[in-house]
Amino acid sequence: IITLSVRSSTGATPSEEINGPGNLMDFLDEPFPDVSTYEDFHTIDWLREKSRDTDRHRKITTKSRESYWELIKGLLDAWSGWVVMLLIGMLTGTLAGVIDLAVDWMTDLKEGVCLSAFYYSHEQCCWTSNETTFDDRDKCPQWQKWAELMTGNSEGAGAYVLNYFLYISWALLFSFLAVSLVRVFAPYACGSGIPEIKTILSGFIIRGYLGKWTLLIKTVTLVLAVSSGLSLGKEGPLVHVACCCGNLFCSLFSKYSKNEGKRREVLSAAAAAGVSVAFGAPIGGVLFSLEEVSYYFPLKTLWRSFFAALVAAFTLRAINPFGNSRLVLFYVEYHTPWYMAELVPFILLGVFGGLWGTLFIRGNIAWCRRRKTTLLGKYPVLEVIVITGITAVLAFPNPYTRRSTSELISELFNDCGALESSQLCDYVNNPNMSRRVDDIPDRPAGPGVYTALWQLALALVFKIVITIFTFGMKIPSGLFIPSMAVGAIAGRIVGIAVEQMAYHHHDWIIFKNWCRPGADCVTPGLYAMVGAAACLGGVTRMTVSLVVIMFELTGGLEYIVPLMAAAVTSKWVADAFGKEGIYESHIQLNGYPYLDVRDEFTHRTLATDVMRPRRSEPPLAVLTQDSTTVEDVEALIKDTDYNGFPVVVSRESERLIGFVQRRDLTLAIKTARQKQDGVVSSSVVYFTEDTPQAAEACDPQPLKLRRILNLSPFTVTDHTPMETVVDIFRKLGLRQCLVTRSGRLLGIITKKDVLRHMAQMMNQDPESIMFN
Amino acid sequence: IITLSVRSSTGATPSEEINGPGNLMDFLDEPFPDVSTYEDFHTIDWLREKSRDTDRHRKITTKSRESYWELIKGLLDAWSGWVVMLLIGMLTGTLAGVIDLAVDWMTDLKEGVCLSAFYYSHEQCCWTSNETTFDDRDKCPQWQKWAELMTGNSEGAGAYVLNYFLYISWALLFSFLAVSLVRVFAPYACGSGIPEIKTILSGFIIRGYLGKWTLLIKTVTLVLAVSSGLSLGKEGPLVHVACCCGNLFCSLFSKYSKNEGKRREVLSAAAAAGVSVAFGAPIGGVLFSLEEVSYYFPLKTLWRSFFAALVAAFTLRAINPFGNSRLVLFYVEYHTPWYMAELVPFILLGVFGGLWGTLFIRGNIAWCRRRKTTLLGKYPVLEVIVITGITAVLAFPNPYTRRSTSELISELFNDCGALESSQLCDYVNNPNMSRRVDDIPDRPAGPGVYTALWQLALALVFKIVITIFTFGMKIPSGLFIPSMAVGAIAGRIVGIAVEQMAYHHHDWIIFKNWCRPGADCVTPGLYAMVGAAACLGGVTRMTVSLVVIMFELTGGLEYIVPLMAAAVTSKWVADAFGKEGIYESHIQLNGYPYLDVRDEFTHRTLATDVMRPRRSEPPLAVLTQDSTTVEDVEALIKDTDYNGFPVVVSRESERLIGFVQRRDLTLAIKTARQKQDGVVSSSVVYFTEDTPQAAEACDPQPLKLRRILNLSPFTVTDHTPMETVVDIFRKLGLRQCLVTRSGRLLGIITKKDVLRHMAQMMNQDPESIMFN
Repeated sequence: IITLSVRSSTGATPSEEINGPGNLMDFLDEPFPDVSTYEDFHTIDWLREKSRDTDRHRKITTKSRESYWELIKGLLDAWSGWVVMLLIGMLTGTLAGVIDLAVDWMTDLKEGVCLSAFYYSHEQCCWTSNETTFDDRDKCPQWQKWAELMTGNSEGAGAYVLNYFLYISWALLFSFLAVSLVRVFAPYACGSGIPEIKTILSGFIIRGYLGKWTLLIKTVTLVLAVSSGLSLGKEGPLVHVACCCGNLFCSLFSKYSKNEGKRREVLSAAAAAGVSVAFGAPIGGVLFSLEEVSYYFPLKTLWRSFFAALVAAFTLRAINPFGNSRLVLFYVEYHTPWYMAELVPFILLGVFGGLWGTLFIRGNIAWCRRRKTTLLGKYPVLEVIVITGITAVLAFPNPYTRRSTSELISELFNDCGALESSQLCDYVNNPNMSRRVDDIPDRPAGPGVYTALWQLALALVFKIVITIFTFGMKIPSGLFIPSMAVGAIAGRIVGIAVEQMAYHHHDWIIFKNWCRPGADCVTPGLYAMVGAAACLGGVTRMTVSLVVIMFELTGGLEYIVPLMAAAVTSKWVADAFGKEGIYESHIQLNGYPYLDVRDEFTHRTLATDVMRPRRSEPPLAVLTQDSTTVEDVEALIKDTDYNGFPVVVSRESERLIGFVQRRDLTLAIKTARQKQDGVVSSSVVYFTEDTPQAAEACDPQPLKLRRILNLSPFTVTDHTPMETVVDIFRKLGLRQCLVTRSGRLLGIITKKDVLRHMAQMMNQDPESIMFN
Repeated sequence: IITLSVRSSTGATPSEEINGPGNLMDFLDEPFPDVSTYEDFHTIDWLREKSRDTDRHRKITTKSRESYWELIKGLLDAWSGWVVMLLIGMLTGTLAGVIDLAVDWMTDLKEGVCLSAFYYSHEQCCWTSNETTFDDRDKCPQWQKWAELMTGNSEGAGAYVLNYFLYISWALLFSFLAVSLVRVFAPYACGSGIPEIKTILSGFIIRGYLGKWTLLIKTVTLVLAVSSGLSLGKEGPLVHVACCCGNLFCSLFSKYSKNEGKRREVLSAAAAAGVSVAFGAPIGGVLFSLEEVSYYFPLKTLWRSFFAALVAAFTLRAINPFGNSRLVLFYVEYHTPWYMAELVPFILLGVFGGLWGTLFIRGNIAWCRRRKTTLLGKYPVLEVIVITGITAVLAFPNPYTRRSTSELISELFNDCGALESSQLCDYVNNPNMSRRVDDIPDRPAGPGVYTALWQLALALVFKIVITIFTFGMKIPSGLFIPSMAVGAIAGRIVGIAVEQMAYHHHDWIIFKNWCRPGADCVTPGLYAMVGAAACLGGVTRMTVSLVVIMFELTGGLEYIVPLMAAAVTSKWVADAFGKEGIYESHIQLNGYPYLDVRDEFTHRTLATDVMRPRRSEPPLAVLTQDSTTVEDVEALIKDTDYNGFPVVVSRESERLIGFVQRRDLTLAIKTARQKQDGVVSSSVVYFTEDTPQAAEACDPQPLKLRRILNLSPFTVTDHTPMETVVDIFRKLGLRQCLVTRSGRLLGIITKKDVLRHMAQMMNQDPESIMFN
């Protein structure tokens, strides 16, 4: 398969390709099972991958004219993209459903067990029981807390302590299992995975990051980590799981497994499927992939991503893990409109979200840096155990932190109906009220609400602090859910405050115009949702996809304006403190070679300032077209570790004629030495079209290597502004670019040079990127 | 402003820029009021526009450090993008609302008039009347048909003929007015405008196409054309109107008015706003702009488009032209799910959509070609009059074609409730039925339904034929609505057929499993919607945006699968007969230089096969760096019409050092001759860094032009495969590219050369692009 790429990049004219079969190098046509095209931690060359794929197409098209069998094979090849999408969607949806069910069960296992069937979660247990009444939906004799089961006593201090102890023990057990599995079997399974996936999609190779082991271990440990009650979510890791599925199915089709560029198209679609099942928002998923994750996103991928996202969403619905036939994670329905005046608290929530984003990113990055550089990083298991212990000890006493975070968010988003039994809905009802169930006016808050407010405030502080330390530990951890929880708590508190103010003071000027007594003016649930969007936006800097995901949750265009206002404010506030979202920050922290599409390079440097060699450095390692010997080439390969070498006419003129890849060169020389008679160390390597024949038989035979020479290397002049160079690297996905002046080779710029230069310029002169 | 671009493209090093102020050419800094950067019908250079914008940013950033006033100006500049979006959204929404109201009124004016207020439409008239009963919503004494008003007699043959006559007369009057206004004031206002907007967004200049006159005339004539009852819609033209608004507001901010690249970002967002108001689907609008219209769509634009689309949608809702507080054009709510077995008719509708797309595109293109080449094109007014006459004569007798097409679609989409009075809902009710209003079982069709079926079948044939001839006439005409109408009619017919089959034969195997007697199995309205999506997809080849628009209409993820199945089938069927949608076909017909992002170039040609000069042609017109005289340059400018000239070291070595734009050269020589002493025809033009001083005072002074030389022209080698060249042109938005071999200039490839070559290869060898 290597030859395909080599052939295409030689740029031989069609007639050459057809008439001159090039017997000399035909042995290269054999696949080398142990040699893959790129090495680990290297960058792919998008242009080359693309031209390899075109070659493949051409071959299939030519063949398909020969026989019906080939035609069918060609058609199957054309359809394989859709098949892969279908498979990814189905597996991702299934895994998401299984994870949801398992998390549900194991989260409840920390508190108690179902006697009728131990594998039922609390809700399922009471739902299948006949003795459950509507008022006491949560209580049924089949479901027993641990203390009740063990001592027969469900009340009192003893039972509380026993339950507390068992809650902590289960949490520690789960998290210990999770971190051990990650450590032993799949170190890549930790974290959210989105920074790495962004880097991979931009063209970096990290072998094993999307492998089968990672898939398996990440799925299992994700369940354990979420169930342990740590402040983390399953959304980010689900994207990683979906990408692993994508990678798995890529290996079924050579079209994708053997082309790193095509593989990334599939992975982009898989990321969309991941978000689609995480939130039940297929359109939001596609936009997330487009906005946040993907690098190269042609329109064909858009359509396929949409297909994969839909299949995944419907598979998940068929499994129906939430038991309510709903696709979405948090289903909400509000009955009252919002008023213009409410934009003020919404924008304040946006500001809060931006500040939270800044605080979280700074705190988390500082902590992760400390983890990398100090002793802390040496004891990942201990760290997880300690954090789980602290989380469990602090979480149990507060009912809002004891339950799972997604349940909490769900409750905070909910509007209080008349029949709601939750503490948050403990309003003082007017006994004369005779309205419909879903149209109740604002009421004064009862004691339950005030208790809830205190507990929520404590939960807010707890979540803010603990999340900073949790994200980045050696277990799968997403931060969508914790971020949303922080925002939802803050939003609900603000919402209740505004509601009570409006109820008690509807004569104030700020309420007078829109809130008459006895009307349902304020929906605290909507504030929670707006807060969640703001906090998520502040951390990730998502915009369109965030609003669309939230829109798919509520299903009404009505509430897009508050969400947008909060998302925009939060982004602006957070951007004022630092341009980068959490994923970009982690990419930078880990030093991945990621060329962000959104960074604008606005400095006045030129290619000549960035290219190597610098003035003080030794000259560029080049080959000449007809005067280098095999020995020289071998020495060059041994002494340097460059990925390839420019070929020039002669050392004097330095006129560039092409570029040769290091691995092609190594391979060609190795095979030539083994199989071709007369090629010895003193043989001259020729990159020219015509090769002089050796005068006498005893002379060393020349080695003709024009076939592996890329005759169309990418060049820019030394005067090219770096902003153009950055643009070219970004849009064409180059690996390197040669710098010339009137045809003379001056130097080379690689992707890493570009990244290094950008980082340098940013730090030196950060004000110049202030205007967006 | 020209100088800005010149400066940036000279690629002078920063130190040169700062130390050498270049007094010589400083007069170029004055703006030339009559000179714009590009000429009409020329292609812009995206890279250059981008670097000009970066320069602007840099200037503002530097200045903003100097004073608070400059800082505020800088912040205002950064915010201007959002202001433009807000303005575009508001104006587009307002115009869409006004158009809707006017069309409503004028469409009804063809049949009668409201006595209480002549400016009321039929619906408004009866809605405001107190004498309207629920059963006879359409009848009220205030609304009088023309015959009733004139003769006092509303029944009988005489009244029918009089109404018929007046219907035709009004239609002819409206269409005559429309075509005359277009002809006299704004020839660019005709057609849908989307092909041209696609071309403009891809970087082509068509002056006046988005001008104020076009905006005004297109808005007015759009109302006239739609009201005249022709088979056309307002959706495409609304996109054009929105883009005109975008262009209008661009002129308020120099950031956008003086940079063609930035302007196109705004126009992309405006297109999204246009679709957003056309269907009331903001997300669909953004995706339409992304998928169908835009060329360069950075993420910043995505977010802003979304904002503009939302503002537009909410402005439209504030105007509330449909009187129902709904955002969407066709609001539908279905109460029954769909069944797997129904996928068969849905896919059949997809096939029908694909066939209709093919038929329409082929027929319409053939007819438009005939219009271009024969006498037909000479009489546009007559053509419009004749087509309007035929349409009106044939449309009046059939109630389904007499009304406006969007009303028709709306009725076809609707599910039949128990209280529905329309002929299409004339089912035989079971007197014992005691179900809820929205949950009625399948019923046998009554005579009204059978009549409606016949009339619908006739309407289908009529619409199919007349639409082919209507689209492309010299009046504003969109084809979303006619296409959807064709699909909706076909879908409704299929839906009723399936429904009646299922009712009468629920023992057949195909129905047995899912349709029990007395159940509500089949929703004919859903079939109409699926058919509409299929036909629209067949004509335009939209995919994601189509499904999302339809999703926003129904608001339920439930029905996405049928819509997707139909859209995919329709696209595949249509693609089998020809890759291009109607917009691409019209672009090709008109010969616009549009480089489609979706076309894959898979041929094995090389840059050397495409570049000019060809072997038989005279050599490339070049300048040398230090041996051309002013006279020579002037002669070259006079004799050729190239956009620019490469500059080489000498004619012998042909080593490329840069590229100079024709208009910069002309301008520089002109100003030098006027203002600079000693520059005469025999002066030597120097592009080098150091210029030898004239030996004696009487010698002609040299003319130094290095400042206008672009030292970083884009080059590729002659061996570069054309697929790479096409990719580079597409992704970087180049205007031209120089071809070199080891530094020697061989030729030039312009965007038009690329397009010509692609067209050639496609026609010669169409099979090779069969696999997608």
